[in-house]
Amino acid sequence: VLRSGGYQCHALDIETPSSFLAGEKFQLDDVIEAQQFDLDILNAIFKVAREMEQIEKRSGQSNILKGYLMSTLFYEPSTRTRLSFESAMKRLGGEVLTTENAREFSSAAKGETLEDTIRTVEGYSDIIVMRHFESGAARRAAGTASIPIINAGDGPGQHPTQALLDVYTIEREIGKLDSIKVGLVGDLANGRTVRSLAYLLAKYRDVKIYLVSPDVVKMKDDIKDYLTAKGVEWEESSDLIEVASKCDVVYQTRIQKERFGERIDLYEEARGKYIVDRTVLDVMQKHAVVMHPLPRLDEITVDVDADPRAAYFRQAKNGLYIRMALLKLLLVGW
Amino acid sequence: VLRSGGYQCHALDIETPSSFLAGEKFQLDDVIEAQQFDLDILNAIFKVAREMEQIEKRSGQSNILKGYLMSTLFYEPSTRTRLSFESAMKRLGGEVLTTENAREFSSAAKGETLEDTIRTVEGYSDIIVMRHFESGAARRAAGTASIPIINAGDGPGQHPTQALLDVYTIEREIGKLDSIKVGLVGDLANGRTVRSLAYLLAKYRDVKIYLVSPDVVKMKDDIKDYLTAKGVEWEESSDLIEVASKCDVVYQTRIQKERFGERIDLYEEARGKYIVDRTVLDVMQKHAVVMHPLPRLDEITVDVDADPRAAYFRQAKNGLYIRMALLKLLLVGW
Amino acid sequence: VLRSGGYQCHALDIETPSSFLAGEKFQLDDVIEAQQFDLDILNAIFKVAREMEQIEKRSGQSNILKGYLMSTLFYEPSTRTRLSFESAMKRLGGEVLTTENAREFSSAAKGETLEDTIRTVEGYSDIIVMRHFESGAARRAAGTASIPIINAGDGPGQHPTQALLDVYTIEREIGKLDSIKVGLVGDLANGRTVRSLAYLLAKYRDVKIYLVSPDVVKMKDDIKDYLTAKGVEWEESSDLIEVASKCDVVYQTRIQKERFGERIDLYEEARGKYIVDRTVLDVMQKHAVVMHPLPRLDEITVDVDADPRAAYFRQAKNGLYIRMALLKLLLVGW
Repeated sequence: VLRSGGYQCHALDIETPSSFLAGEKFQLDDVIEAQQFDLDILNAIFKVAREMEQIEKRSGQSNILKGYLMSTLFYEPSTRTRLSFESAMKRLGGEVLTTENAREFSSAAKGETLEDTIRTVEGYSDIIVMRHFESGAARRAAGTASIPIINAGDGPGQHPTQALLDVYTIEREIGKLDSIKVGLVGDLANGRTVRSLAYLLAKYRDVKIYLVSPDVVKMKDDIKDYLTAKGVEWEESSDLIEVASKCDVVYQTRIQKERFGERIDLYEEARGKYIVDRTVLDVMQKHAVVMHPLPRLDEITVDVDADPRAAYFRQAKNGLYIRMALLKLLLVGW
Repeated sequence: VLRSGGYQCHALDIETPSSFLAGEKFQLDDVIEAQQFDLDILNAIFKVAREMEQIEKRSGQSNILKGYLMSTLFYEPSTRTRLSFESAMKRLGGEVLTTENAREFSSAAKGETLEDTIRTVEGYSDIIVMRHFESGAARRAAGTASIPIINAGDGPGQHPTQALLDVYTIEREIGKLDSIKVGLVGDLANGRTVRSLAYLLAKYRDVKIYLVSPDVVKMKDDIKDYLTAKGVEWEESSDLIEVASKCDVVYQTRIQKERFGERIDLYEEARGKYIVDRTVLDVMQKHAVVMHPLPRLDEITVDVDADPRAAYFRQAKNGLYIRMALLKLLLVGW
Repeated sequence: VLRSGGYQCHALDIETPSSFLAGEKFQLDDVIEAQQFDLDILNAIFKVAREMEQIEKRSGQSNILKGYLMSTLFYEPSTRTRLSFESAMKRLGGEVLTTENAREFSSAAKGETLEDTIRTVEGYSDIIVMRHFESGAARRAAGTASIPIINAGDGPGQHPTQALLDVYTIEREIGKLDSIKVGLVGDLANGRTVRSLAYLLAKYRDVKIYLVSPDVVKMKDDIKDYLTAKGVEWEESSDLIEVASKCDVVYQTRIQKERFGERIDLYEEARGKYIVDRTVLDVMQKHAVVMHPLPRLDEITVDVDADPRAAYFRQAKNGLYIRMALLKLLLVGW
C-alpha cells in the first residue's frame, strides 16, 4: 500500500473492541520484510495464527475472506510457497488468480515496468502475493499499489512469511520464545531463513544462539554484530553433538550447491559435515525439536522423521496458519 | 455456439420485460470479432458494463454466475488478458479452469485437432475463453462448440474484448462517442487495437480521426478506405502537438520491435518519433485523455501518469467490466 | 492413505443405512490401480457416477464437496486429465490447488523426495490427484500420505480412472457388461488403456474379446494368458470389418509414434492399417458403439463423428462423472 510513511505498521485509534490486547493498536498494510515487525505485532499475529489453526482443524473452510480475490504474481516458480498461500486464501473462503510466469508481463521484448504491472494487477484483485528475483522488488510494488502486497520472497532479499512461521513454530513447539537456546546449523552464509530467524530471535529475552557451520559458509559478521549489539549471547561451535545436547531448537539448513559454482569438492565437503541423524537425536533433550525450512536432502536422515521431535513437517504446516493470519489481517483487520 | 446462421447476434422475440431498451432484442451467442457488434448491441453491452462497475465497487463479488465454470484455453500465454477474464468470472461468483499450455492438447506428437479439443473441453465447462496463435481459430471453435466461445485474441486476427473496452473507455471518459476527435498515434500498421478501434468508431456520428505515425508503420489503406466509405473524416499528420491540442482522445500505441526483424535502426528511429510527455499534455484540452492498450515502454513518459488525463490504467480496469458484462450476457442473458 | 493393510478397499461395518446395496460394505481410501476394484465396488462407483450425471445436468454445481480442497500435483503436464479432475471437483463445490510443474518440488538441484513433497502438500489440502512419470509413484505417495491419493497416471504404469470411465461408458452405451463382444483395435502393445480395459472386462460374465492390431503392436502374452485363465474367450483377427460387424463395442486406439523411434516406416505402415471410417460403421450393428480414449489422429475419420454410434466424446464426458464419483466417495463416503 502506498502511504506517505512507507509500508510500516502505523498506530491507529480503533474504537471497536478487539480480543487482541497486543494487536489492537496496529494496522498491517503490507508484509515486506521481517524487520517491520516488533514484539507486539509478532505476538498479535501469532494469536491470530492460533485461531486459524482452530478454523482449519474444525471446519476446513471459513467464510472470513469470502468475496476477496488474491493474485499470486510469481516472477519465478516456487510451488511450495505458492500452494501454501493459495491454500491459506481458500481455507478462508477467498479466491485466487494465479500466475507463475509473471515475467511474461515484463518480457525483454515488451519491457513493461514492475510498477505498470502492479497498477494493472491491482485492478483485478484485492491483494497481491509477489515472488520476484530482485531484492527490493516487493518494496517497490508496495510503493505503487493501492492494495496490500505480501512479499513471498524477493531474490536474495527477504522472505518474511518464512521468518514468521519459523518463530511461530518455536513458540508452538517449545511454548516460549524467551530464555531459549537455538542451534543454527548448515549454510549460515547464504540461507536467508537463518539470517531472518537470528534477527527476529534478537527481539526476545535471554536467547542464546549457537552457530554450527562448515568454514566456507559461516554466518556473516553483520548478523553477529547485530546479535552482539542487541545483547544476544552467541557462539560458534564445530561440535554439533554438544550443541544439540544443550539446545531447545536445532535448526538445520540445506547446503546450497548452486552457491559453490564449479567447486563441487568444497560443496561435497561442506554438505557431509553436520548431519542430523539418530546420534544427534539421542543427545537432544526430550522437549527439544529439529526444524528445517525444507526442502531437505540428506542433512536430516530419513530415520529422524518418525521421532516426535522432528518438527519440520509441522513447521511447513504452520506456514499455512501464518499466511491465513496475514491474509485475514491485511484484508479485514484484527 | 454452432448455429445455422453462424455466430452473429440474432433477433429474438423476448416476452419478459428488460431494462435494456437497446439490448432487449438481441441474443449474444459468442464473441468472435469486433465486426459482429452493431450500435445497439454496443450500447447495451456498455450499460451492463456500467452495472458491473457498481457490483465490483460496492461488494467485490456477486453471485450472478455462481455455479458456472469458465475454461481459459490459452494456446499462447497472455497473462494480462487471462487474469482480466478470470477476475471477471470470479467477481461474479463463477469458477475457472485454467490452462496456459493448451498447445499440449494438440502437440505435434499427438496431433489432435482444435475441434476435438473443443468437444472435450466443452464437456468440462460452461463457456470457453480462447487465445490462439492462428487467425480464425476462434471462429472455428465457435462452429464446433455447443457452449459460448469468447475470442481472447487469435494471432494477427481479432481481439474483440480489447476493442470493446477501448470504446467503452472513451464513452466513460469523454461522456460521448458521437462528435469526438481521436488521435491514433504510433504503430498504426501492425497494431490490431487501433485498427479495430477505427472500425468501431466509424459506427458513430461526426467522428474525426487523426493518424500520427512514423512512415514505416502507417495505417494501411483498407482502414482508410473503410473510413472514407463510412463518411468518417480522417487525416494523416506528423505534428503530434497540433493533433493533441485538438483531440478528445490521444490513443498512443507501442512500436512493436518484433515487426522490424534485423532493422533495429528503423525501429529505433520509429520508436522515438512520437512520445506523449508533459509537453504534449500541456497542449491537450482539460477534458481530453491519453489512452494506451498497455504494456507501454517509453512512448508515454512516466511523469504523465499522475495527470488526471492519463486514462490508461482506468482503461485496463474497464477491461474487467467489459469482460464481466460479456460473461454475464453469454451465460445468463440480458 | 497410509494403513497397515496398504491402499486396498477394506470391509467395514457401517450402521447407517445406505442406498448402495453393493457399496455399503466398502470404504475407498485411495485410487491407485485398476486391480484394486472388484465387481461390487465397480457397480457401486457406477451408481454414484450416475447420480453425478444428474447433479451436473440438473444444476451445474452442488455443494457436496464445499469446503474441501484438492491438490492436482502433476509431475508432467496432462491438460485433458487435469481439467477433467478440476472440473469434477468444482462441479461438486470443492476448491482446487493446481500445479503442473511439480518437478520443481524435487528438482535435480534441490533433490527433495516424493515422500517429503507429499508430506508438505497434504498439509495444504484434503486430497491429492497425482500424475507422475514413474511407475509406482502413486503407490509410494499413498504409503506416505494421511489424505487420499488418486493416481492420474504414473508413467507406463496405471491410469485407473481412465479404465473406470471406459467400463462405465460401455455400461451406459450398451446397457450391460455381461455377455458383450468387444473389439480392441490399434496399438495393443503399448496402450495402457486397452490393457486395463481387458483386465476389468474379465470380471464380467460371457465376454468375448477380439484383438485387431498391426503385427508390431500386438497384445502382449501376459494379458492373453490372464484372459485365458479367467475363462474369457478371445481371438486375434486381422479383419476389422468382420470384427466390427459382430461387436457391441469397437474400441479404437492411437498408434503411438513415439514408440517407434527412428522406424518411421514401421509407424506409417502400422497407423494406416486399421481405420474406423464409414465403411466400418456401415457393418456395425445399430446398437453398437465406437470408443476411443482420445486424442485421436486419423484412426477414426472425422465423418464418423456425426453418427450416433460415435461414443468417444460422450466417453470423455463420462470421465467427469467417474471423477466426481471418486472424489465424493474418497472425501465424504458413500
